[in-house]
Amino acid sequence: MNRSNSTNDSERYHQGFETLKQVMGQSQAEAILQLQSFAPDLAQYTIEAFGDLYANPVLDIKSRELATVAALTVLGNAQLQLKVHIRGALNVGCTRPEIVAVITQMYAYGGFPAALNGINAAKEVFEERDQHNQENLG
Amino acid sequence: MNRSNSTNDSERYHQGFETLKQVMGQSQAEAILQLQSFAPDLAQYTIEAFGDLYANPVLDIKSRELATVAALTVLGNAQLQLKVHIRGALNVGCTRPEIVAVITQMYAYGGFPAALNGINAAKEVFEERDQHNQENLG
Amino acid sequence: MNRSNSTNDSERYHQGFETLKQVMGQSQAEAILQLQSFAPDLAQYTIEAFGDLYANPVLDIKSRELATVAALTVLGNAQLQLKVHIRGALNVGCTRPEIVAVITQMYAYGGFPAALNGINAAKEVFEERDQHNQENLG
Amino acid sequence: MNRSNSTNDSERYHQGFETLKQVMGQSQAEAILQLQSFAPDLAQYTIEAFGDLYANPVLDIKSRELATVAALTVLGNAQLQLKVHIRGALNVGCTRPEIVAVITQMYAYGGFPAALNGINAAKEVFEERDQHNQENLG
Amino acid sequence: MNRSNSTNDSERYHQGFETLKQVMGQSQAEAILQLQSFAPDLAQYTIEAFGDLYANPVLDIKSRELATVAALTVLGNAQLQLKVHIRGALNVGCTRPEIVAVITQMYAYGGFPAALNGINAAKEVFEERDQHNQENLG
Amino acid sequence: MNRSNSTNDSERYHQGFETLKQVMGQSQAEAILQLQSFAPDLAQYTIEAFGDLYANPVLDIKSRELATVAALTVLGNAQLQLKVHIRGALNVGCTRPEIVAVITQMYAYGGFPAALNGINAAKEVFEERDQHNQENLG
Repeated sequence: MNRSNSTNDSERYHQGFETLKQVMGQSQAEAILQLQSFAPDLAQYTIEAFGDLYANPVLDIKSRELATVAALTVLGNAQLQLKVHIRGALNVGCTRPEIVAVITQMYAYGGFPAALNGINAAKEVFEERDQHNQENLG
Repeated sequence: MNRSNSTNDSERYHQGFETLKQVMGQSQAEAILQLQSFAPDLAQYTIEAFGDLYANPVLDIKSRELATVAALTVLGNAQLQLKVHIRGALNVGCTRPEIVAVITQMYAYGGFPAALNGINAAKEVFEERDQHNQENLG
Repeated sequence: MNRSNSTNDSERYHQGFETLKQVMGQSQAEAILQLQSFAPDLAQYTIEAFGDLYANPVLDIKSRELATVAALTVLGNAQLQLKVHIRGALNVGCTRPEIVAVITQMYAYGGFPAALNGINAAKEVFEERDQHNQENLG
Repeated sequence: MNRSNSTNDSERYHQGFETLKQVMGQSQAEAILQLQSFAPDLAQYTIEAFGDLYANPVLDIKSRELATVAALTVLGNAQLQLKVHIRGALNVGCTRPEIVAVITQMYAYGGFPAALNGINAAKEVFEERDQHNQENLG
Repeated sequence: MNRSNSTNDSERYHQGFETLKQVMGQSQAEAILQLQSFAPDLAQYTIEAFGDLYANPVLDIKSRELATVAALTVLGNAQLQLKVHIRGALNVGCTRPEIVAVITQMYAYGGFPAALNGINAAKEVFEERDQHNQENLG
Repeated sequence: MNRSNSTNDSERYHQGFETLKQVMGQSQAEAILQLQSFAPDLAQYTIEAFGDLYANPVLDIKSRELATVAALTVLGNAQLQLKVHIRGALNVGCTRPEIVAVITQMYAYGGFPAALNGINAAKEVFEERDQHNQENLG
């Protein structure tokens, strides 16, 4: 890291990491950690940005995740991160119909192909959850 | 499907126009109407899409406007429509800090230039409102 | 408006579905139908949009498909739908050289990487057709 | 220019310039020429690309202009060039309703804001033509 | 600001602001400061990001500015920031021909319209400098 | 090819091909050659563009490759070509930390998802090189 690991930056970083783990889940938090050895600055900025944004209570966390799902759907250049944030949206209490509704709405701003790709991402995440729940029940 | 299959197109269109007028305000509704003689199909699709999406109660109208502001900020190719939807967001009850927060968040998904342009759009809309309010008071 | 205001939504939907099946082929039409249970609104809007646009005779269907192939090539965020529309273009009578020519032209508007990805999509579709034809002959 | 102005490159360049002048009109050709002193390589590549693409008869020039209008509409980052190509489309025989139709179609691939901006560009070009025609008649 | 203005964050912020002023010039630094009252978080993130990135000596500052000019040229959604970074590139020692060369190169990755808009931005910045220099000499 | 294979165009083409082979390596040069039978114009334009741009000595080849890596990272629609150019950057002498630094910087202009995808592309290329080096040592 190219700036001092002083207490405060350290706190900022750890707060970001806790938020990330809480919203995205353990496995996604570990994926970012693995990035640390390869691209430490980018890992740090990602974690800090996450913590900073979600620490601002002006916007509730559900609205933030829906806005991110909307943005990633229209950008259409990051299916992986879109799935990460669909999982995050579910984790913080967004319902499946809400996620489907916000992605559907995006056809109006990014076109049908972007919206259809977004819907496919949601379908994969929901099926993965169902699979996981069935395994836990079985 | 969230509306009955027997709706007649005329009803659908008029419902869309009423929603548009309510969310965007009279002047924006008239701008779309003026499009009608030049590009009637696009005007019709725009109005219907608006009505269809906002008629679906799964997502409240404030969340819809914030998601649209997020999407238009990262796309960065439609400052005019971004301002229209910032006005719409205010009209349906989003607060100024909420709008600033969602645009700020978008630096993480579309970069700083897109977010800074979004913030400038918000600043212009807020100042225009303040100006308008002062004139009404004066 | 290029269609009567009294069309009922059900008619509009069925007209769209017939156009979709005719242009895109049975398998793509079924893919959209499968979407219906997961995201019914988006499926409906997609089908209606397809029917509405192609019902307008101002632009012949070959020009529409070439324009769509051009748009999806420069957007570069929907390889799957690009392939669907390259198949559609062939189905409605565009020649392979015409498709290669329009994708090639797009390097000038979206850059070489977008054009090269578009050409690879075309190559895959053409090879899939050749394979299919050989199997039918064999 | 960073490569020799040999006869053949010269021919290629002049053919490109003649095509550009024919499709885009004298004033646009002069705009590119003015670029020559500031960014000679980019001016040369632009002119050559134009000549190369339009010299290939596989696709007629009307289809090429409609495809370009479609691409620039969904990209949404070059209103100026979109207007240049709408003028070009008119020059090579595309009708106004065809241009409106292809831009309208683009809402399905690039969203409503991109299509609405495209329609506004078309409106400005058509009005500018009408104005010009009236002056010539007057 | 939604996190404590502790010493270290403060240092980070001030280092960022000094870098910004040095690279972009006084007037651009003041533009960011003016943002502070309207969108304090975005202003802070922008300044910190600037300082963090440019403090990393792995890449010299000229290469960073050229890479940013390249990125903003192909994105094509932020002409204002592109001009800011063309000024920055000149400030840190990039030559005019280098800037023209990197923008020209971008036609290959983002298409001619994006490159032509980038070149126009460079032309405006260079003319503004020439004007300014003449006034100082006069 | 739709224009005469005269000596000069031929020279331009061969110069481009030699540059391509030198920067990108034999296997990438062969990939472009394979394109020749399927889309000869696009292959030709790609090769010529490459030769033309890199023949201009105003910008050194390392800066050109870093600028291209920056542009492809923010565009985010061409992971394959991004990897090709990361290999190219290594081939012309850019260091791994320089490549990581320029991709990291791009979070500020194209957002975190685009930067993270860019970093993953770099990680794959570096691992592929390490694997290859180990095999040669073994």
